[in-house]
Amino acid sequence: MVDDICRLTAATISAKLHDGEITAEQLARACLARIAAREADVRAWSYVDPAVIRQARELDKLPSRGPLHGIPVGVKDIYNTADMPTQHNSPIYTGHRPNADAATVGTLRAAGALILGKTDTMEFASTGRLAATRNPHNLARTPGGSSSGSAAAVGDFHVPLALGTQTGGSLIRPGSFCGVYAMKPTWNAVSAEGVKLISTTLDTVGWYGRSVADLALLADAFALQDDEPSSFNGVAGARILIDATAYKADAASLATLAQAAQRLEAAGAKIVHRDLAEIFTPLDGMWEIVSRSEGRTAFLDLSRLHPHLLHEEFVRRANNIGGFTRAELVRAYDTAAQYRVQFDRIAGDFDAVLTLSAPGEAPEGRVQGDNSLNRDLTLLHVPCINIPAGLGPNRMPVGLTLTGPRYRDRHLLTVAAGMAPVIDCDPMP
Amino acid sequence: MVDDICRLTAATISAKLHDGEITAEQLARACLARIAAREADVRAWSYVDPAVIRQARELDKLPSRGPLHGIPVGVKDIYNTADMPTQHNSPIYTGHRPNADAATVGTLRAAGALILGKTDTMEFASTGRLAATRNPHNLARTPGGSSSGSAAAVGDFHVPLALGTQTGGSLIRPGSFCGVYAMKPTWNAVSAEGVKLISTTLDTVGWYGRSVADLALLADAFALQDDEPSSFNGVAGARILIDATAYKADAASLATLAQAAQRLEAAGAKIVHRDLAEIFTPLDGMWEIVSRSEGRTAFLDLSRLHPHLLHEEFVRRANNIGGFTRAELVRAYDTAAQYRVQFDRIAGDFDAVLTLSAPGEAPEGRVQGDNSLNRDLTLLHVPCINIPAGLGPNRMPVGLTLTGPRYRDRHLLTVAAGMAPVIDCDPMP
Repeated sequence: MVDDICRLTAATISAKLHDGEITAEQLARACLARIAAREADVRAWSYVDPAVIRQARELDKLPSRGPLHGIPVGVKDIYNTADMPTQHNSPIYTGHRPNADAATVGTLRAAGALILGKTDTMEFASTGRLAATRNPHNLARTPGGSSSGSAAAVGDFHVPLALGTQTGGSLIRPGSFCGVYAMKPTWNAVSAEGVKLISTTLDTVGWYGRSVADLALLADAFALQDDEPSSFNGVAGARILIDATAYKADAASLATLAQAAQRLEAAGAKIVHRDLAEIFTPLDGMWEIVSRSEGRTAFLDLSRLHPHLLHEEFVRRANNIGGFTRAELVRAYDTAAQYRVQFDRIAGDFDAVLTLSAPGEAPEGRVQGDNSLNRDLTLLHVPCINIPAGLGPNRMPVGLTLTGPRYRDRHLLTVAAGMAPVIDCDPMP
Repeated sequence: MVDDICRLTAATISAKLHDGEITAEQLARACLARIAAREADVRAWSYVDPAVIRQARELDKLPSRGPLHGIPVGVKDIYNTADMPTQHNSPIYTGHRPNADAATVGTLRAAGALILGKTDTMEFASTGRLAATRNPHNLARTPGGSSSGSAAAVGDFHVPLALGTQTGGSLIRPGSFCGVYAMKPTWNAVSAEGVKLISTTLDTVGWYGRSVADLALLADAFALQDDEPSSFNGVAGARILIDATAYKADAASLATLAQAAQRLEAAGAKIVHRDLAEIFTPLDGMWEIVSRSEGRTAFLDLSRLHPHLLHEEFVRRANNIGGFTRAELVRAYDTAAQYRVQFDRIAGDFDAVLTLSAPGEAPEGRVQGDNSLNRDLTLLHVPCINIPAGLGPNRMPVGLTLTGPRYRDRHLLTVAAGMAPVIDCDPMP
C-alpha cells in the first residue's frame, strides 16, 4: 500500500514513520510519483528539489527523530530556502537563491521535516502574474490565490503539509477552494522573517493539512501556546456564534453554513446567530488602506531597482497612485486596534465564531477569487481555521472558517478537532 | 583639501560631487584613509568592502547620477547585503553571505550610494555579544548599543551617513553618546525587509548623519512624505512641549535640556513644560512585554537550530523563561495602540516635543547604556530625531530628542533644521 501513503493525513503518516512502518524515503518516493502523475495538469510547483530522495535517506539514518521526521512539506515560493530557488513568480527573481532559510523553514528542518519543493504563487503573493496552478477538483477552475500551489499540492495528495501566507485571504480562500484544512494563526505568533514582505500589519504565515490534527502538528512545531488549556468539552454544549449577515455570499454557500449549523445543533451545540456588523462596518475600507499604504513601503526598493520587471501594479503602489493619505493610514491602524479589542471580547463569550471562508465555490479561469470574507479577519489578527464542509452546486469544495480571539490558537484547534467530524463531508477529490 | 572631505556633512559632500568638485573615488579614498588611521582604536567596522574603489570609479563613469551619487554609507551588520558578509555579531553567521540586499540597501544603491561596509553591532542588535566599537570622543567609553558601529563611524568621520535600527533605543542612544544626528522615522514608513527580525511591532530602521540636511537626504531616498507641507515657520513663534518630569536623568543632562529650552525661548519659541505621565505611566512595562514576547517568535528557529551558538538570553526568550502571558501581550498591544492616539493628539498641538535622548553621557566600558528614555517612543511608533546639544561634565556629547505625531516625519525634519542651529553646540570631536 506504499503507493497510497501520499493520500494519508500528515498525522497518520507521522505515526507510521515513527513506528517504522514506512521510511522517509518510501514516503518521498510516493509523493514524487504522485507529482509526476499529476503535475502536468495541476501545476502546483515552481520547483521540486532533486535532492529529496538523498535527504530522505539521510533522515532515515538519523539515530534520533524529530517530531516532523520525514514528513514532506511544500513551501510557497515567497519563503526563502537555502537549498532551492526562491522566485516569487517574478522575473526579477528568476533562479534566485537566497542562501538562507526563512525562519519557519529552518524551524521545520530542525523538527526533521523534508522540504520537498516550492509551490507556485501570484507575483509576490499579491497581484500581477498569476500562478499557473489549477484546482485539482476541476482543472478549469482556480485553486484560489495567492497560496495556490500549496493548497492544490495538499488537495491533490502531492504533499501532506504545505506553508502559505495570508495578507488578505491568501490562505483561507485557497483552502476553501481546494477542500483542504488551513490555519492562519494569530498575527506574529509565527515568524514571517525570510518571507517576502507585502504588508507588515497584515502578512501572516500559515499552513495547509488534511485534518485538524495535521494543522496541530505544525502548531506544535511553531510552538503555538495559549495561556490556558482549552475549556472546550466537545460539540455537545458548545456555544458557537454564527456570523453570516454581514457577508455577501451566494445562496449555495449560505446553505452550506446553515447545514453545518443544523448538524452542530443536532450534535448538541448551542448556535447563536449574531450580526457582527458592529465590528465589520467600521472596518469597511480599512484593509485596503493598510495593504496599499504598506505596499508603498514594501515595494519601494523593487520599483526603483527594477521598474520594468515589476508588474505595474507594484510600481503604482510604491508611488501611491491610489492617493491614500497618512492620516487615513493612521486612522485605519487605530480603528483596527480598537475593533481587535471588541472582536476578542465578543468572540471570547463563545467557543468559536463560525462563518464562510469564501463567498462561493472556486470560480472558473485563472483568477484569485474574492477575499472579502477573509481580509477583515486578517486585519483583526485573529486565528482562523478553514474546515472543508461539503460540495457546492458545481461539485466544488466549500469551506467554513472557525475563528476566535487573538492567541487562542490552541483552543481553536481543539474546537476545530471536535467540530470537523460533524461538518466535514469529505470533500477530498 | 581632499583629505578633509571625509569631515564634511553628507549634504555638502553631495553638492561637491554633483558639481564635479570632487569625485566619488576621491571621497571613497578619503574615507578609507580615515578608517585606516582610526579603526584600530574605534573598531566601528565588521567588514569594509575591498571593492569600494572600483565601485566608486564605476559611479564616476555613469552618465546620469542618482540623488545619493557616490556618497559612502555604512550599514549596520544586521542588514543583508548581496556583496558582503552579514554576520549579526553571531558565530552562527560567521562569513554568511545572504546573496540579496535588504530593501533599504537596494533603495540606496538605486539612488547611487556607495555601500562602504558593515558596522559592528550587539549580537542580533539585542543582547549577548557586545560590539567591539569604542566611543570616538573617549575610547574608554561606550558608543552605545546596538547601532554602535554606525554611530561611531559617522561620529569619527569614517562615513558621512550610516544605517542603524531601533527596537528599544538602539539608534537614538548611540546618536546621543557619539554626538551625531540620528533619525528614527515613523514605524514601517521605511521597509525593514532583509533586516534581522527582533520584534515586528518595535523594529524600526533609521540612520545617522552630521546635520539635519543629512538626515533629510535619506528621508528623500526612502520617499518619506507627510500629507501636508510643514506649518513650521522658524523658531520664533514655534510652540515646543518639553517633557522631562517623567524621566529619570542625571542633573547635567537635565541642565542641557534646560539650557536648550532657554536658548529656544531666547530665539522666540514658546516653551510649554508638561508632564506626559498620562502617556508614559500606563505604558510602564509594556515595551518589555512586547519585546520579550515577540522575541519568543523571532528567535524560535535559531534556538532550535543552533542552541549552543546562540547567546543563552535568546534561548531564554524563545522559551519564554520570563513567563510573559499571551493576555499580557494582547493587553500591551492594545494599550500601546490607545496611547499612540493620545500621544499624537497631544503632540499635534505643538510644533514638536523635546526631551532627552539618554539619561546621561556615554558610560565607561563595554555596555549598551540605558534605553529607558527611548523605548516608549519606539512603542508609540513616532518619529524621533537626535540633535547633539552640547557636552556633559565628562566632555562627552549629550543629545536631545525631537519627536511628534506619527507620519509627520518631514515636518519634524523641518523643525529640527530650524532648531539645530539654536541648540547644537558643535559636539563633533
